[in-house]
Amino acid sequence: MTYKLTYFNFTALGEPIRFLLSYLNIDFEDNRIEVEQWPSVKHTIPYGKLPLLEIDGKVLNQSTAICRYLAKKANLAGSDDWESLLIDIAVDNFQDFRLSIISYWYEQNEESKAAKYATLVNETIPYNMERFENIVIENNGYFVNGKLSWADLFFVGILDYLKFRSEIDLLKDRPNLQALREKVLAVPKIKSWIEKRPSTVDIA
Amino acid sequence: MTYKLTYFNFTALGEPIRFLLSYLNIDFEDNRIEVEQWPSVKHTIPYGKLPLLEIDGKVLNQSTAICRYLAKKANLAGSDDWESLLIDIAVDNFQDFRLSIISYWYEQNEESKAAKYATLVNETIPYNMERFENIVIENNGYFVNGKLSWADLFFVGILDYLKFRSEIDLLKDRPNLQALREKVLAVPKIKSWIEKRPSTVDIA
Repeated sequence: MTYKLTYFNFTALGEPIRFLLSYLNIDFEDNRIEVEQWPSVKHTIPYGKLPLLEIDGKVLNQSTAICRYLAKKANLAGSDDWESLLIDIAVDNFQDFRLSIISYWYEQNEESKAAKYATLVNETIPYNMERFENIVIENNGYFVNGKLSWADLFFVGILDYLKFRSEIDLLKDRPNLQALREKVLAVPKIKSWIEKRPSTVDIA
Repeated sequence: MTYKLTYFNFTALGEPIRFLLSYLNIDFEDNRIEVEQWPSVKHTIPYGKLPLLEIDGKVLNQSTAICRYLAKKANLAGSDDWESLLIDIAVDNFQDFRLSIISYWYEQNEESKAAKYATLVNETIPYNMERFENIVIENNGYFVNGKLSWADLFFVGILDYLKFRSEIDLLKDRPNLQALREKVLAVPKIKSWIEKRPSTVDIA
């Protein structure tokens, strides 16, 4: 089977997919679109959004759906329906958190942007990061049930980008999330990917 | 088991969950929060967002994760991993579409709001509704593989609310989506729910 991932030349929503493909030891074409190219490419893309994964030419969009599919193959999607539910909830909570950062970033009105940044720094980031830290404490070092799942890979995969866009060290004073990050980055197949991936502006 | 759904007194993200609980013939407490109550309740809710489903007192947030879990019980979540993937993609595409409508609705700056509405009416709504219509044509009257799935229930469940917020008849000139809506509303357990549900401002 052939796998082609099309995404921008940074981590963000592409990286959890790259993590999972690497974890599965799947060779994939890592097709990176430069931001300057995007306006001329956008209209050719279903729903006008990236990432896209093509499997044997079948075009798939929606990063969480793609990650869940790959995670099932990797046995990282929960061992029963309840565990899968808890993983899905964790991922969608990260996605909501990502959206609040992105919503600030793309805001065009300068006054609204400043107001959004204040809410982000004073409320949204501390509130969410504290919850995430506590969930990892309650779940023995992982997001769900004390074992590695795609929720952990997803969180660590998008973290650099969220830090870059918010300009805030999200893991500061969050030792359990820091330890989780180290564990994920030390998984051999993820480690090999990190060592060979292109250097991009959003990687710390 | 006891099921308690907490949501606002309208359809939106609560309704696909109400549809699925009804489809499964599960008795549930339909706890409705009035918008005026919300500021005094919000801080008690995990992540500050509704809906929440409590199953035997275990508190779950994130509507798509909850729907997927219930859909598995109802055999509406795909018969293999590939079909589940296609259903997940369809649902996340609706969620993106919903977010573009909601993002206009919650915009505080009047100038930005007018600009967002113009984009919604002239681009986002026609683009997405045409894609959804075509997907249903290609899939013999449903969103995925010619048979009922939770993608269909999800779409029909949130449709009234999206029409209410956008003030646009989303199904106008979309006969295949209209037919899909009729089919979903005619499913006996959904039909019984529709007949007994409270009347709210967003129901046409």
